[in-house]
Amino acid sequence: MAMVQAYRRISGGSVVCADSLRLTTCWRYFSTGFREERDTFGPIQVPSDKLWGAQTQRSLQNFEIGGDRERMPEPIIRSFGILKKCAAKVNMEYGLDPSIGKAIMEAAQEVAEGKLNDHFPLVVWQTGSGTQSNMNANEVIANRAAEILGHKRGDKFVHPNDHVNRSQSSNDTFPTVMHIAAATEINSRLIPKLKQLHTSLQAKTNEFSDIVKIGRTHTQDATPLTLGQEFSGYTTQVKYGIDRVICTLPRMYQLAQGGTAVGTGLNTKKGFDVKIAAAVADETRLPFVTAENKFEALAAHDAFVEASGALNTIAASLMKIANDIRFLGSGPRCSLGELILPENEPGSSIMPGKVNPTQCEALTMVCAQAIGNHVALTVGGSNGHFELNVFKPMIASSLLHSIRLLADASASFEKNCVRGIQANKDRISKLLHEAS
Amino acid sequence: MAMVQAYRRISGGSVVCADSLRLTTCWRYFSTGFREERDTFGPIQVPSDKLWGAQTQRSLQNFEIGGDRERMPEPIIRSFGILKKCAAKVNMEYGLDPSIGKAIMEAAQEVAEGKLNDHFPLVVWQTGSGTQSNMNANEVIANRAAEILGHKRGDKFVHPNDHVNRSQSSNDTFPTVMHIAAATEINSRLIPKLKQLHTSLQAKTNEFSDIVKIGRTHTQDATPLTLGQEFSGYTTQVKYGIDRVICTLPRMYQLAQGGTAVGTGLNTKKGFDVKIAAAVADETRLPFVTAENKFEALAAHDAFVEASGALNTIAASLMKIANDIRFLGSGPRCSLGELILPENEPGSSIMPGKVNPTQCEALTMVCAQAIGNHVALTVGGSNGHFELNVFKPMIASSLLHSIRLLADASASFEKNCVRGIQANKDRISKLLHEAS
Amino acid sequence: MAMVQAYRRISGGSVVCADSLRLTTCWRYFSTGFREERDTFGPIQVPSDKLWGAQTQRSLQNFEIGGDRERMPEPIIRSFGILKKCAAKVNMEYGLDPSIGKAIMEAAQEVAEGKLNDHFPLVVWQTGSGTQSNMNANEVIANRAAEILGHKRGDKFVHPNDHVNRSQSSNDTFPTVMHIAAATEINSRLIPKLKQLHTSLQAKTNEFSDIVKIGRTHTQDATPLTLGQEFSGYTTQVKYGIDRVICTLPRMYQLAQGGTAVGTGLNTKKGFDVKIAAAVADETRLPFVTAENKFEALAAHDAFVEASGALNTIAASLMKIANDIRFLGSGPRCSLGELILPENEPGSSIMPGKVNPTQCEALTMVCAQAIGNHVALTVGGSNGHFELNVFKPMIASSLLHSIRLLADASASFEKNCVRGIQANKDRISKLLHEAS
Amino acid sequence: MAMVQAYRRISGGSVVCADSLRLTTCWRYFSTGFREERDTFGPIQVPSDKLWGAQTQRSLQNFEIGGDRERMPEPIIRSFGILKKCAAKVNMEYGLDPSIGKAIMEAAQEVAEGKLNDHFPLVVWQTGSGTQSNMNANEVIANRAAEILGHKRGDKFVHPNDHVNRSQSSNDTFPTVMHIAAATEINSRLIPKLKQLHTSLQAKTNEFSDIVKIGRTHTQDATPLTLGQEFSGYTTQVKYGIDRVICTLPRMYQLAQGGTAVGTGLNTKKGFDVKIAAAVADETRLPFVTAENKFEALAAHDAFVEASGALNTIAASLMKIANDIRFLGSGPRCSLGELILPENEPGSSIMPGKVNPTQCEALTMVCAQAIGNHVALTVGGSNGHFELNVFKPMIASSLLHSIRLLADASASFEKNCVRGIQANKDRISKLLHEAS
Repeated sequence: MAMVQAYRRISGGSVVCADSLRLTTCWRYFSTGFREERDTFGPIQVPSDKLWGAQTQRSLQNFEIGGDRERMPEPIIRSFGILKKCAAKVNMEYGLDPSIGKAIMEAAQEVAEGKLNDHFPLVVWQTGSGTQSNMNANEVIANRAAEILGHKRGDKFVHPNDHVNRSQSSNDTFPTVMHIAAATEINSRLIPKLKQLHTSLQAKTNEFSDIVKIGRTHTQDATPLTLGQEFSGYTTQVKYGIDRVICTLPRMYQLAQGGTAVGTGLNTKKGFDVKIAAAVADETRLPFVTAENKFEALAAHDAFVEASGALNTIAASLMKIANDIRFLGSGPRCSLGELILPENEPGSSIMPGKVNPTQCEALTMVCAQAIGNHVALTVGGSNGHFELNVFKPMIASSLLHSIRLLADASASFEKNCVRGIQANKDRISKLLHEAS
Repeated sequence: MAMVQAYRRISGGSVVCADSLRLTTCWRYFSTGFREERDTFGPIQVPSDKLWGAQTQRSLQNFEIGGDRERMPEPIIRSFGILKKCAAKVNMEYGLDPSIGKAIMEAAQEVAEGKLNDHFPLVVWQTGSGTQSNMNANEVIANRAAEILGHKRGDKFVHPNDHVNRSQSSNDTFPTVMHIAAATEINSRLIPKLKQLHTSLQAKTNEFSDIVKIGRTHTQDATPLTLGQEFSGYTTQVKYGIDRVICTLPRMYQLAQGGTAVGTGLNTKKGFDVKIAAAVADETRLPFVTAENKFEALAAHDAFVEASGALNTIAASLMKIANDIRFLGSGPRCSLGELILPENEPGSSIMPGKVNPTQCEALTMVCAQAIGNHVALTVGGSNGHFELNVFKPMIASSLLHSIRLLADASASFEKNCVRGIQANKDRISKLLHEAS
Repeated sequence: MAMVQAYRRISGGSVVCADSLRLTTCWRYFSTGFREERDTFGPIQVPSDKLWGAQTQRSLQNFEIGGDRERMPEPIIRSFGILKKCAAKVNMEYGLDPSIGKAIMEAAQEVAEGKLNDHFPLVVWQTGSGTQSNMNANEVIANRAAEILGHKRGDKFVHPNDHVNRSQSSNDTFPTVMHIAAATEINSRLIPKLKQLHTSLQAKTNEFSDIVKIGRTHTQDATPLTLGQEFSGYTTQVKYGIDRVICTLPRMYQLAQGGTAVGTGLNTKKGFDVKIAAAVADETRLPFVTAENKFEALAAHDAFVEASGALNTIAASLMKIANDIRFLGSGPRCSLGELILPENEPGSSIMPGKVNPTQCEALTMVCAQAIGNHVALTVGGSNGHFELNVFKPMIASSLLHSIRLLADASASFEKNCVRGIQANKDRISKLLHEAS
Repeated sequence: MAMVQAYRRISGGSVVCADSLRLTTCWRYFSTGFREERDTFGPIQVPSDKLWGAQTQRSLQNFEIGGDRERMPEPIIRSFGILKKCAAKVNMEYGLDPSIGKAIMEAAQEVAEGKLNDHFPLVVWQTGSGTQSNMNANEVIANRAAEILGHKRGDKFVHPNDHVNRSQSSNDTFPTVMHIAAATEINSRLIPKLKQLHTSLQAKTNEFSDIVKIGRTHTQDATPLTLGQEFSGYTTQVKYGIDRVICTLPRMYQLAQGGTAVGTGLNTKKGFDVKIAAAVADETRLPFVTAENKFEALAAHDAFVEASGALNTIAASLMKIANDIRFLGSGPRCSLGELILPENEPGSSIMPGKVNPTQCEALTMVCAQAIGNHVALTVGGSNGHFELNVFKPMIASSLLHSIRLLADASASFEKNCVRGIQANKDRISKLLHEAS
């Protein structure tokens, strides 16, 4: 506690180490010392080994909400790297000193690659415009670029505002990185995992195409169908889910960059918006364009509400599929028992040999969370005022959370469950004949 | 009460008149008497002046939930008319007696036109497959067709199952009418009203294009923009809203008909599914097709969850727009006062001359309800089991409710508010100059 | 259409008969004619056979949203009767002419008894303060009281504002009737129905106390328990549900009346708030008190969000119970088949003898809707501004809708399902022995 | 990548280091090596420096969902420490070897104090019963206790099942730690922070009691009130919020422990349930009792749905308060400007001196997330089946997330905003006089 007290005195009165940062981390700060950074508010102590500056440090102290796990999602950080790299590139066309521009690009590339994640400590629960994370990116990149050029951290040889944030405003950069992050995550994470699940379900559809079984409607015995037909329903659900999320992308590919503070593009250059969208498209190989209407792009996040609606539909589909599979696999003796699910771990200490549908359980929990995140995002999306929606970090975080969870859980479910499902043909046959 | 008691005795023990039907209605039943109808359960008394039969009557008695206002939405009833007309037409190709087929088509046409609405008393909260509403349609159309052919109600000259429901199952008819009703309501009600709102917002965007005003971000004074630019954001939101709901239609145009009980098409004819989709398309002039996968079409309602997601996004957009307009019109003296909203009714008895943004209030309440209905629908959509989702009537009702409310409220908001909005130029100018 | 045109001309330009009111109703208006009513906006034509006045008529024309089924819920109308009766009684203590006061009490009593429901045509989607429904009540009661005293409708011998609304504002009356309606419906409808369900589940718990069966965890076979123990879980859930909703009542019993426009009680009399709460308590035999803080009582509806949270919990409980019962009753041959559920209607035309768990289906659909309504209500409850929340009618309507549905569906489920559940002892025994 | 490949080979085929664990961590594993642990599935390699065993390691490999931030919330881990300590204590009364019992108590105390957090790597998205986290606790405590007694990790001198988990099942331990964690977090974190906010709002209510200002209803100018009265509404909302969450605690204090696998208490000792609840109550100084009905306690989590409903109400309240404060503080020149909010950070690079209501923004984002989490939890709570709800980790995580966020954000809002709010008396007075 003495060290914390000491640290508190040094850093200017507010507790940083409170419960989200571990004491060992504080110790390291303490031992490595602090440097002074400044903003329009004046000087403030920043840990020497960190690249962030004054505004990041203030946010750390002003928003002690949720702890370390609530840090801005990594795809947002990486997308800041992409954006700032592209901005430097375009700004050089508009007169930014090339040596500074190139250093910014190099530093930004490190951010884009996730190498500087430890220098982005801010949580989601901050300014609703994401201003402080934009400044975090500006500060880290400026300090890193300065280092690359042989200067010291904090001396502002490369300036966070004048150089890194040039022609930009938090109000247009943050929605831009939201769109970059979401579109990238959807394309590189969610869709491949859903396709993998689709492929596996399609394989089971084919494999089970000759197995006739009892159908069930109202949970009651109904007319027969094949197990393959049953799985073809799941396959179709996943296929349409992929279509649904793809349908939302045209509006996700629209970037706010160039709107600056309120959408008018004040303080930026003519053509900056189109050029930067092209640069981002080039960098990400995704068809980003400049937003048709910058006022909408800052003041609302309907594109996120829409995309979240697609995720919500996917969640409803996966919930249905996972529920069916666990019920079809229920038993082994006293329930349906038509499917044999892979056994991945010991089931019960009391009943050896018990195989629980644990992958179905993980997946359905993820679906429930995605359904809830969708409501959170909708509440945030509906509550913008005037020229700026200020639920941006929460909106971004909720969508990225759901994308990550649905993608990972789909992959886990595919790999550890669907792929290994076997039809219990004897049981299926026995039940079918009992029915008639 | 004596009459109710009497009625209760006659109708077989269960109370029909309970609170949802008025005593006067009961009296009419009593005075006009009852006839006996039968199903596989045996005979039951049905009011003489009603066309429904035994299964409808049983449902009335078994599901006294919510009262008269909870009756199945009218678009569902009308869509049953469309479907049963088309089914008769196609069934004649497969051998249905033409005189019976034509009478069914004529009776079904009356249902499609809403002329027999009083003969559809069942509530949403019934069998989750909508079976009883399908039987309600079969019974009413059979009795009406029998009358057309000079026969008596209840004599089953035209048979509800063998003729009207021929080659069909509740499990494929109900999802079919859900899709017909939703696609029709979206096309004929929602989109036109949203377009009307879009047109009006676009007109204001143009009208206000030269009015420079203070921008507001974080609810704080920011850099200026024009009032036209501010409205262009709203216009874009509504335009994209229309796009969003249109994006969901390809999956809504897929009809389950032909899947029968579990999706295999047992008990129907080869080609029936394609022909009936074509007939419905012809009848409605909407591009309906037979569902690619009938198992998905019965067991899940992802198309509804998806469409509801589009409505949820529209609700978030309209909430933002209506909130902005009421705040921009707040005052007249002690708030923003930049807009003058139409005065449609007396405001306050205590403060004469008070103009309240009542249309904004109605619209935002509607948006909140649509956001809630979306959750209800998602819960229902995620909880299907095996070959049949049994939350069908609720899912249909929630979506149709939201469509109706959003459409009507958009039209009311356009007509009674947006169209008459005036810019308070003096106030706008005064604030702008105070800011600098 | 000619008549509609004529009516439109007469009533001042706006369509009233549009689709929610039937043409026959219009005809009756036409045949019986119109009278002129006035408010501060000027004269307006009102159907002669209706007791409402100018402000109601204007609202009808300004808010054509949702149609007839969206009328303000009946418990709100009845509660206006209770409130206005009590207000007249208390106002007589403060000098209201006793003959007028008594006539108001008599007219209000008719409203409280539901006799004048046809004179309350306004929909939920109106002014967010419910002002127009308050005026509807004032106008109807004033006209009816005038008639009682031998005067004509519309002559304002009894004045809607000066007499019926005396010492009141819409801003305090509407939240007051919201609380009266919700507390009454909870006490007289929801709790009795839940108790009935609890009693029936308790009876089954006892009846099944000796039937040993296989337990199921993760949907897999687990260690045994008795069927009575299984039902004891359900019984406990319902018991706690009743406790939960009762826990929310202390805040529901607080009445806003006396706060008038913004909570300060301007334009009312000292002590009016306490007296009217006492009068309402006396009239309803429920322990209503005046709200501790009138500002909170007008500006927020947290008491409704809270009560809705209790309903949401009950919905989650009933969803679990109904799901279990339908799965335990699934079969008859190819699923669990441990319970035999009552057969209330024909199941399937294709599979005779099929018994579907239709009551479970109706109940789970109701639960999904209540979960959705809770979100709608929460969105409305969180969006109040300054001295007044203007989502009042939606908030009231959502809660009353959920109360009604959950109460009715619980009763239906109890009567038509739980009460008649039988244990399939042979099947239970067979499964138990297969397990070991 | 070579190291990852190597690690993959060693650890049995599945990637552990995938993106959530950093390469450096993998390196450390590699350098420090692995030891073999076993369960009924056979041997598996576990990092030498970790206390966990075979079942934890398997879960790590089977559930690569969401990454490191999705680890089981710390209050769950600590509550496992509390529970396992109490279990050892009670088990010694029933014959557990005292030396082993005492070592378990010592090891469990370390878990309770958070000293062994790094040994709990499992994510929320695992088996829905939380079995794997229970085993994680058993394994860590067993290995640590063995070390305390001078034995080696992995030799099972202290056995995870036979000693640490004695008389317990995952099915009763996990719901027990859920309740301990939630009740503790509510009492030690949420309520104190809400009380702090309440105190600060009450102070402002008093401070502002003489400042007369314009009231606003429908966002329009209305009759005056004092700023103190306006704040008294907020104060009351927070006060009732505290009451609301306290109301839910009686059901949260009920512990499932003693129910074992399905609620019957098979494999545990008579009286174990009562003794362990008493021990936990003693340890935590909270009035825990054994659950009245163990079947309900395992199969449903209504107590969590209920508590989440209280949080949802608090979120709605705080959303209203924070919205009001940001609008009352909007300006400084072109909006209301009645409040002066503390300036905590630079506002805008473009507009120096801009003060943004950043604390209001963080708080309202938190409220939106809590509203969404409530829906997630409700979906999970409603989907239990038979003897076990298998959404346990998600339900626990959602509630604890909302508690933490609401508590922290309330404290931050209080400290960095409410406490420093000043009335702009000149502006308030000017507006008031303009109104009249």
